[in-house]
Amino acid sequence: MHNFNSGPSILPQEVLTEAAEAIHNFNHTGLSILEIGHRTNWFGEVMTEARYLVKEFMQLGDDHEVLFLHGGATAQFMQAPMNLLDTDETAAYCDNGIWGSKAIKEARLFGNVNVVSSSKDKKHTYIPKDFFVPEDSKYLHYTTNNTVEGTQWHHIPATTVPLVADMSSDIFSRPMEFSKFALIYAGAQKNIGAAGVNLVVVKKEVLGKVKRPIPTIMDYGNHIEAGSLLNTPPVFAVYVSMLTMRWIKKEGGLEEMEKRSRQRAEFFYNALDTLPLFKPIVAIEDRSWMNAVFIIEKPELEKQFLEQCKENGMIGIKGHRSVGGLRVSMYNALPICSLEALVDLMKEFNNKFA
Amino acid sequence: MHNFNSGPSILPQEVLTEAAEAIHNFNHTGLSILEIGHRTNWFGEVMTEARYLVKEFMQLGDDHEVLFLHGGATAQFMQAPMNLLDTDETAAYCDNGIWGSKAIKEARLFGNVNVVSSSKDKKHTYIPKDFFVPEDSKYLHYTTNNTVEGTQWHHIPATTVPLVADMSSDIFSRPMEFSKFALIYAGAQKNIGAAGVNLVVVKKEVLGKVKRPIPTIMDYGNHIEAGSLLNTPPVFAVYVSMLTMRWIKKEGGLEEMEKRSRQRAEFFYNALDTLPLFKPIVAIEDRSWMNAVFIIEKPELEKQFLEQCKENGMIGIKGHRSVGGLRVSMYNALPICSLEALVDLMKEFNNKFA
Repeated sequence: MHNFNSGPSILPQEVLTEAAEAIHNFNHTGLSILEIGHRTNWFGEVMTEARYLVKEFMQLGDDHEVLFLHGGATAQFMQAPMNLLDTDETAAYCDNGIWGSKAIKEARLFGNVNVVSSSKDKKHTYIPKDFFVPEDSKYLHYTTNNTVEGTQWHHIPATTVPLVADMSSDIFSRPMEFSKFALIYAGAQKNIGAAGVNLVVVKKEVLGKVKRPIPTIMDYGNHIEAGSLLNTPPVFAVYVSMLTMRWIKKEGGLEEMEKRSRQRAEFFYNALDTLPLFKPIVAIEDRSWMNAVFIIEKPELEKQFLEQCKENGMIGIKGHRSVGGLRVSMYNALPICSLEALVDLMKEFNNKFA
Repeated sequence: MHNFNSGPSILPQEVLTEAAEAIHNFNHTGLSILEIGHRTNWFGEVMTEARYLVKEFMQLGDDHEVLFLHGGATAQFMQAPMNLLDTDETAAYCDNGIWGSKAIKEARLFGNVNVVSSSKDKKHTYIPKDFFVPEDSKYLHYTTNNTVEGTQWHHIPATTVPLVADMSSDIFSRPMEFSKFALIYAGAQKNIGAAGVNLVVVKKEVLGKVKRPIPTIMDYGNHIEAGSLLNTPPVFAVYVSMLTMRWIKKEGGLEEMEKRSRQRAEFFYNALDTLPLFKPIVAIEDRSWMNAVFIIEKPELEKQFLEQCKENGMIGIKGHRSVGGLRVSMYNALPICSLEALVDLMKEFNNKFA
């Protein structure tokens, strides 16, 4: 199978093998990873290693803390402003896609939202770069990669206000100056691991400043104090994250992931640009290295193309229901040979129907 | 290994076998359960079956909806009052143990809490039965089984106000008149499956009545509308829940689970009552069939006893850090032979040291 799913998505084969083994016998304990207490040393070591690897990848010091929390990014749309934005304060948000728009909707429940940039005018097919962030904004929120629309920030926005980023769909695909961020969050089900856990990286100095009472489980500060073991964590999902990060490290870390991402993206966009039947719909300089979104020039052929993909064991190529068209997701674990097989099929299809 | 963990805890061997197989190859798809999209028919069938089995076990009609949500019961301590209790309203709460107390703390952030009954005077070693619930209470909240203290409600409190129950540690261990409840929630990591998902059963008529704006992901109504697929769910944890419920059904359903629970509890408490060295500390009529909490009359022997347990492959017997002493958890998947082995060891220890 060639797995182009947008998330949950492909994971490294050896991660799957180890995860399955741990369901039978975790770390030679004679117990399943599903049956061990979260306060045992057994799991404590998993959580510690997972948190440590994030710090190592991100080159973070003691100013930042790493948490693995229940839920997906959608929970963070709410939890971030709940912790950071007071009722009478204003946060700046970039509206660059469906997920950014959802984050804005939730933030409005907690304070004022200033949408400082929007790409709605062109259906979110580009990233506006020239926008103004008032210096008294509590923070600037943006989505580093727009999974649905296929755009990606290839730089960090220049601003003096604290940066908050949803990195769900491109985290660990490249080195970044992660220490610049006040808050980073990411659902695990793309490059981190399996669905059911959120990675949250927070700069401690931004916490404890809002006046509202925060429910215990929603307060980042409580999770930091408890070493990310405030309540029973999603044990297995954290374990799979740890395994996936071990794999990233072994393969060469974020530098190697970036090299592979670039290879995959260049190879695939090059094909898209040369095959007349297929048409990328995103501004060239903003193309996502994770999710290539495109259409077939003759839309009546889309169904047939998707069927041929399926017959050839290629899945996950249908575009998001809100956008339509086609989408090819190219996360860390996707081997280039999957893209080669797909491009071969696209060439054949192009030659037949262009 | 004999697994007496309080949660995450023992699961049926065949559930573990199937879960591990699905990590390699889910349902003959050639894909891992960790790699499939949550909006595929593949996963849709898992979610549908899981929700259906809950309704079947609980004998619920269309008035109730079944959801599988991110997080554990701690999230529900907050989410329940957020959805049900307005700022100027009062909910009645039973304070029968550490988890009930935590639920009370969270509810106070959303409205008024009337603690109608408390067993704090005797360190939560019993369940008060004679208490008054004002008729204008928005709901009555209680914890059906107190995992930490080892007490359990063996009846449903008689009241005319809507019932809200945290059933995390005894759900699916017995048939109950589940339709009597306005809201039931339970973290999965005891009788339902693996850590990382919450079962929520809600009577639709109680929703949509509070004035506060509810964050999208916290609103039960949104989850109902989306068929429990509002955002990426914790796919694997839902799958393990479904497998565990299939196992319960195959074994004979909640009636059979109750029979086995009774057998286990009678066998173990009988041993406790006859061995002078070990002393149950909970009111006899309120003893939990899930978690037997007890002490050693000579506390200096506790460490030695726990070491002997460990040497004999018996784990999870240390009491909760807030209570101390010893605790033996006897969830659905625990075979009676594990208890027999433990009781043999206890007899030996008793004969040596009593």
